[in-house]
Amino acid sequence: MILVLKPDASEHLKNELINDIEEMGLGVHVSVGEGTTIIGLIGDTSKINSYSFSSYEIVSNVLRVTEPFKRANRMFEPDDTIVDVCGRKIGQGYFVVIAGPCSVESEEQIVEIAKQVKKAGATFLRGGAYKPRTSPYSFQGLGLEGLNYLKIAKQETGLPIVSEIMSTDVLDRFMEDVDIIQVGARNMQNFVLLRELGRTRKPILLKRGLSATIEEWLMSAEYILSEGNDNVILCERGIRTFETFTRNTLDLSAVLAVKKLSHLPIIVDPSHGTGKAWMVGSMAKAALTLGADGVIIEVHNNPKYALSDGEQSITPDKYAQILPVLKKYAELENKQLEV
Amino acid sequence: MILVLKPDASEHLKNELINDIEEMGLGVHVSVGEGTTIIGLIGDTSKINSYSFSSYEIVSNVLRVTEPFKRANRMFEPDDTIVDVCGRKIGQGYFVVIAGPCSVESEEQIVEIAKQVKKAGATFLRGGAYKPRTSPYSFQGLGLEGLNYLKIAKQETGLPIVSEIMSTDVLDRFMEDVDIIQVGARNMQNFVLLRELGRTRKPILLKRGLSATIEEWLMSAEYILSEGNDNVILCERGIRTFETFTRNTLDLSAVLAVKKLSHLPIIVDPSHGTGKAWMVGSMAKAALTLGADGVIIEVHNNPKYALSDGEQSITPDKYAQILPVLKKYAELENKQLEV
Amino acid sequence: MILVLKPDASEHLKNELINDIEEMGLGVHVSVGEGTTIIGLIGDTSKINSYSFSSYEIVSNVLRVTEPFKRANRMFEPDDTIVDVCGRKIGQGYFVVIAGPCSVESEEQIVEIAKQVKKAGATFLRGGAYKPRTSPYSFQGLGLEGLNYLKIAKQETGLPIVSEIMSTDVLDRFMEDVDIIQVGARNMQNFVLLRELGRTRKPILLKRGLSATIEEWLMSAEYILSEGNDNVILCERGIRTFETFTRNTLDLSAVLAVKKLSHLPIIVDPSHGTGKAWMVGSMAKAALTLGADGVIIEVHNNPKYALSDGEQSITPDKYAQILPVLKKYAELENKQLEV
Amino acid sequence: MILVLKPDASEHLKNELINDIEEMGLGVHVSVGEGTTIIGLIGDTSKINSYSFSSYEIVSNVLRVTEPFKRANRMFEPDDTIVDVCGRKIGQGYFVVIAGPCSVESEEQIVEIAKQVKKAGATFLRGGAYKPRTSPYSFQGLGLEGLNYLKIAKQETGLPIVSEIMSTDVLDRFMEDVDIIQVGARNMQNFVLLRELGRTRKPILLKRGLSATIEEWLMSAEYILSEGNDNVILCERGIRTFETFTRNTLDLSAVLAVKKLSHLPIIVDPSHGTGKAWMVGSMAKAALTLGADGVIIEVHNNPKYALSDGEQSITPDKYAQILPVLKKYAELENKQLEV
Repeated sequence: MILVLKPDASEHLKNELINDIEEMGLGVHVSVGEGTTIIGLIGDTSKINSYSFSSYEIVSNVLRVTEPFKRANRMFEPDDTIVDVCGRKIGQGYFVVIAGPCSVESEEQIVEIAKQVKKAGATFLRGGAYKPRTSPYSFQGLGLEGLNYLKIAKQETGLPIVSEIMSTDVLDRFMEDVDIIQVGARNMQNFVLLRELGRTRKPILLKRGLSATIEEWLMSAEYILSEGNDNVILCERGIRTFETFTRNTLDLSAVLAVKKLSHLPIIVDPSHGTGKAWMVGSMAKAALTLGADGVIIEVHNNPKYALSDGEQSITPDKYAQILPVLKKYAELENKQLEV
Repeated sequence: MILVLKPDASEHLKNELINDIEEMGLGVHVSVGEGTTIIGLIGDTSKINSYSFSSYEIVSNVLRVTEPFKRANRMFEPDDTIVDVCGRKIGQGYFVVIAGPCSVESEEQIVEIAKQVKKAGATFLRGGAYKPRTSPYSFQGLGLEGLNYLKIAKQETGLPIVSEIMSTDVLDRFMEDVDIIQVGARNMQNFVLLRELGRTRKPILLKRGLSATIEEWLMSAEYILSEGNDNVILCERGIRTFETFTRNTLDLSAVLAVKKLSHLPIIVDPSHGTGKAWMVGSMAKAALTLGADGVIIEVHNNPKYALSDGEQSITPDKYAQILPVLKKYAELENKQLEV
Repeated sequence: MILVLKPDASEHLKNELINDIEEMGLGVHVSVGEGTTIIGLIGDTSKINSYSFSSYEIVSNVLRVTEPFKRANRMFEPDDTIVDVCGRKIGQGYFVVIAGPCSVESEEQIVEIAKQVKKAGATFLRGGAYKPRTSPYSFQGLGLEGLNYLKIAKQETGLPIVSEIMSTDVLDRFMEDVDIIQVGARNMQNFVLLRELGRTRKPILLKRGLSATIEEWLMSAEYILSEGNDNVILCERGIRTFETFTRNTLDLSAVLAVKKLSHLPIIVDPSHGTGKAWMVGSMAKAALTLGADGVIIEVHNNPKYALSDGEQSITPDKYAQILPVLKKYAELENKQLEV
Repeated sequence: MILVLKPDASEHLKNELINDIEEMGLGVHVSVGEGTTIIGLIGDTSKINSYSFSSYEIVSNVLRVTEPFKRANRMFEPDDTIVDVCGRKIGQGYFVVIAGPCSVESEEQIVEIAKQVKKAGATFLRGGAYKPRTSPYSFQGLGLEGLNYLKIAKQETGLPIVSEIMSTDVLDRFMEDVDIIQVGARNMQNFVLLRELGRTRKPILLKRGLSATIEEWLMSAEYILSEGNDNVILCERGIRTFETFTRNTLDLSAVLAVKKLSHLPIIVDPSHGTGKAWMVGSMAKAALTLGADGVIIEVHNNPKYALSDGEQSITPDKYAQILPVLKKYAELENKQLEV
């Protein structure tokens, strides 16, 4: 960490600042240039809040030289992490497809969709049992009953299950019945939940928050990793901007950024990312060519009756048309499609 | 809710759509204009997801005619809600000042600050026992020990306590020791937490999410209200924009918007909203003149040593200079300062 | 256009509103539902400002049923527009690559780069003679001298020229020396300039504004088209968001949106869109797979000495590595690479 | 300017970088800390593009120590600038009110409104003769005819005129007939226009761009100042965010920021800033209490017939109710209301 002092900083206040830093157990390297004094902090500054120094009157700028995330950092671990889920691999040369409805609505519905996506080709079945909905009057998911139906769908198709958790009180059931636990965008900074999931060894799909920077997102991953759970998969799902044509703005450059900054796998959600069913196939293809490790796609057997997110769901038929395209491009990119 | 159909919608598909709507238990009013057919839905559409209709091929636009929030809506309850906390009133003609440090750091610190803000004039003492921090390596708060210290500070000064909750597992202790439970920006859409708080009758301070629209924010209030807890206080704390000079962009027009749309009290947080200690007093004054029902101000006896958010904290001395200004303007605005 | 009235609208005010609409030369279709009255406007509403109706007290919502752009609208012209520039085609099945430095710095520089990109494969040479710079103290471009050098580079390589115009006073020279006139993001709503360019028949490359919605962008195209110039090429170059890792957030879904809404060709600028040289090749490839009609890439023979935008420029060597990838993917997408 | 090098930077590349800097005529101050080397640039770096250094492989961070604006900087000129327009003062202890319609629509309209705002109290009359409209099919203003009508309105009331310029070809007429030339948000980075206006000595009202940072805005002011025109007045008019309830998000903290960073006067536009007529009075009052040097308010004698921006216009009657409030608060803030 580097502190740039104001030109008119008095010797007295400089010394006070230096003392304060040394009392934190850090070393100090002072460099006096023309008009500007720069103080370099030596030692482990990861626990230091860079904001604290801004409150010193003589400090004009505070600059972090190293990224604040450690275990998620590619410098810490240069090789790609591969998360293994029931024998399916996520990361490095593999490409997974997670498919299924936004919400589990009934046993028939989820089993039917599971069979259809299995037939077309899918690595995992997704389905929400607990749904974070803006309105308390909207369908909130079937809860534990939904988890039961997912279990049945898994038995029928062999597809491992991805489902979103919203609170720790149902964690035991998720540990048993769910193969990848999803943390939704709205809970990306639910730090109590992240920490608790960090204490398990369950694979965690961590969605980017609606207005989270890439650094904040990696810091949320760090919460899970720092508790010992290395099985973190990131998921880009679009960010909130002023544009209203799409539901969110899918930030595909985030795939490249995450690959550069971190060793963790990253998948893309073109369904939430655009909110438009007709964009899903193309954006999934683009994500693949950019090096994403997978996609998560909303599939509903009857989008117009879907209890949530109908507009962005595609039918199993449309899904079956997308898979061959992904297969073709996976080959080109030397990715092994895990379906 | 109104559905605008595409010009080329076939009679067959129109009838199918109308049947589907009627099966939802709703009435239909069809209006055929030049080129455009409009379908008005008659009945309670609050449970209907407007997205569902967008997946019908023949529907070009879906328009909600009524706001999706009901109990938070001023049309439902035209009179200002007044929340009573230990005899202090929030809402309508009252103006409260919540002051204290971002984090409780020690008994001495919180008691000292409590005494100083009490002396200068304050309605409530704030202090974080549980801190949502971007980094797992940053100070996370003293937890239950912090609540103990807050209790002592309350005994010493008589100031009721405002503190942030991050998960339901400590709700019992918050019910006992805290007078207003704060829900932070990052938990604004932690719906499990909101619902649980809705089942209590404790006053809840609900902060606006980092990138939440006013409507989403009121829908989160609705989660609490719909469970029967009417004691909701909203708090504008700045939104995330491209501007980097301030930490967030404090949206003061939200005070006016909320007052128009809802009967709930709204306070403003100029400390998080700007991230600049030197802006706090002026923005607090502006909030008051716009009709806010209070402000929440970070006060730390030694901002440069603060374990969190030093840059935006003011000293008790600075705080003592702000209070007379607020008093003067409260009089002008015919607000009763509750200190 | 549809007006939704407030439930308590009086008959008197309704009639007044209807009269006002009819005086505008429009027809009216009134539809009375349960609690809600809807007024449909019949006739050409493209000149009507939808904001005007919002000032009527009894109007609660105003909804445009048709897009406000006409000539840019795919409904107006279902077939893809192909812009022909010196025999090179832009649009439909063609894919163009525009390459060159941000700024023309000297004759040697631009001729050297032109030769190198020509050798590697390029459709057009870009180079800025007039540079819109945030700071008045930054290099502002060589002006007319720069245009001279571009002309020489064209003579040497045969590559047609793309260069940005900033004001109409140099339009005559641009008409002579430049093959595609670029309108930069900061001038996307410089309506005087757009209108003037609309009066020529020169191909115009219209960049999306820093925070322009897709609709606003198409409306700016409409300014050019409405004056009779059909040779408009759109260019997505990233939008401004809260993310700071990339210079902008490249909105690749805009390619799909524009293709749906309009018949105009659209190209992508991965250099400005990300601000990171190492992202350029991958994002260009992704743009191609999404159906873009071309890319514009910053190439500088010595990025570290570049007088502008060094960080996002690639070397001719890196450029030469990207071209074969684009060739391969163009084939896959059945696009004809125009190099 | 400070360059932070990567930990593994080789001596060879370091020396190359240092040579390059020295060839730019700058001095170098090297400081070697634990793991990190920092290079401070000594001399005038205002013409250096900080992006250039980012393209050096060994540079990890580039930090500007001083603000890039000079003449707009309060460090350059600590005293508040006062712009004098026909004897009315803008800046320091004065508070001006600019009132009038968005567009001049007819002689009768502008004269009538001018008389009414004059009667209620106003410093300047605003009225658009040239209107930047998103759609080419919307009313574009009366042009020179509009300027004529403004001149008549000035003769009748004595109110000096504020009107927006969109291109330099009508500058001569603006120099004669207009007292403050407005540069609209969409032209904030029309650098050719800014430079031309900098060569006059006419007072310029420079609106903040739709998504401009405060720094970029001050840099645009710098374009005018650097050409010798010191009569620049800044105008905050709301920025573009994800919120849709208001037309823009009025960033009132920008008033405080600008006052800190610059000596230039700043006024606020609550009409465009909110897009809601009923918010205008309150936001104007809040702007005043925050230290703004004035407000610009849209007033139309018949908002519902206004050819542009009806929703945000207030009637002369409403305007007449706002003025006494501003008077009262101006007194409190020790501002002299220039009406």
